[in-house]
Amino acid sequence: MPEVADRNHLHLDPKTREEARRRLLSTKGHIEGILRMLYEDQSYCVDVLKQIKAVQGALNKVGELVLKSHLRDHVATAKDRGDVDRVVEELMEVLKYR
Amino acid sequence: MPEVADRNHLHLDPKTREEARRRLLSTKGHIEGILRMLYEDQSYCVDVLKQIKAVQGALNKVGELVLKSHLRDHVATAKDRGDVDRVVEELMEVLKYR
Amino acid sequence: MPEVADRNHLHLDPKTREEARRRLLSTKGHIEGILRMLYEDQSYCVDVLKQIKAVQGALNKVGELVLKSHLRDHVATAKDRGDVDRVVEELMEVLKYR
Amino acid sequence: MPEVADRNHLHLDPKTREEARRRLLSTKGHIEGILRMLYEDQSYCVDVLKQIKAVQGALNKVGELVLKSHLRDHVATAKDRGDVDRVVEELMEVLKYR
Repeated sequence: MPEVADRNHLHLDPKTREEARRRLLSTKGHIEGILRMLYEDQSYCVDVLKQIKAVQGALNKVGELVLKSHLRDHVATAKDRGDVDRVVEELMEVLKYR
Repeated sequence: MPEVADRNHLHLDPKTREEARRRLLSTKGHIEGILRMLYEDQSYCVDVLKQIKAVQGALNKVGELVLKSHLRDHVATAKDRGDVDRVVEELMEVLKYR
Repeated sequence: MPEVADRNHLHLDPKTREEARRRLLSTKGHIEGILRMLYEDQSYCVDVLKQIKAVQGALNKVGELVLKSHLRDHVATAKDRGDVDRVVEELMEVLKYR
Repeated sequence: MPEVADRNHLHLDPKTREEARRRLLSTKGHIEGILRMLYEDQSYCVDVLKQIKAVQGALNKVGELVLKSHLRDHVATAKDRGDVDRVVEELMEVLKYR
């Protein structure tokens, strides 16, 4: 459905990209920490659940960052570009079971 | 609140630990993939959002795995051990804003 | 922050309004059903939890309906109207801890 | 899967039932409020989304209440009763896509 031509100029702005990268790197480190916990014999379930929840929270933040930038740069300008239906369908697909 | 003595024998069973580790490793790989996307100039917001959502889904699976094992091995036996209140409080804390 | 003047023409379109109403009425009926369950001595927790989850799912649907219409009619046209920042801030507030 | 005989003594405790009822009644009132909003010509999408989100939050609270009571009264005692697998399967089904 999305045409390559249409999407070519719909990039993530550099500042958001940088911030998302920074946060995702830290999330990756967090997951490595959980992996280390799971290599120990004595890892306690609830501690693992807490850490997973913290990672989910961090990923939510990254998602919100990217979503906000997408709304501002690509959704709010859709009428101008003339691709409202495509942009809205596509976004609803991602937001659906969030 | 949780006493060390009480928790010392409440470990994640080896099979679940192994499976959680396997899944988390793959999640880590997935995040590295998103990081690579974010190093490109032309990453499209919605693709990033989709990947983040997929990682969230994978983390949910890991969480469910650990939760199930925790319910079976530690919550269902709480009355026997005599630490019902502690175990329930602690679990609710994790489940709350899931 | 939202100015009354700006918002006066940002209404929910009649078709979505009608559909949201229809679904919410049914959700209300569903909640009345749970209330009846809770008046019985013998209501089983898991049945109540299942019903609550079903209501949550139905409310998600209503939310998605309204969100889609909002994206199409008000967010995608924000650049034209010149209120991008306001519209995006406001929407992020609602989407945040969804 | 759940046998009637097994479930007959697994009821929601009266205090939780009362509290859940009280909160659900208020949630029902809240939904009636949204319905009234939706009968007006000028309902604004974001206001509707905010109200739906508030109702979801209130339903989460009811769910947590019932879940906590279920964990304490029925899950923590499962080993004693000898129905651990059934109780855990059943609960995971409800918690899954929460």
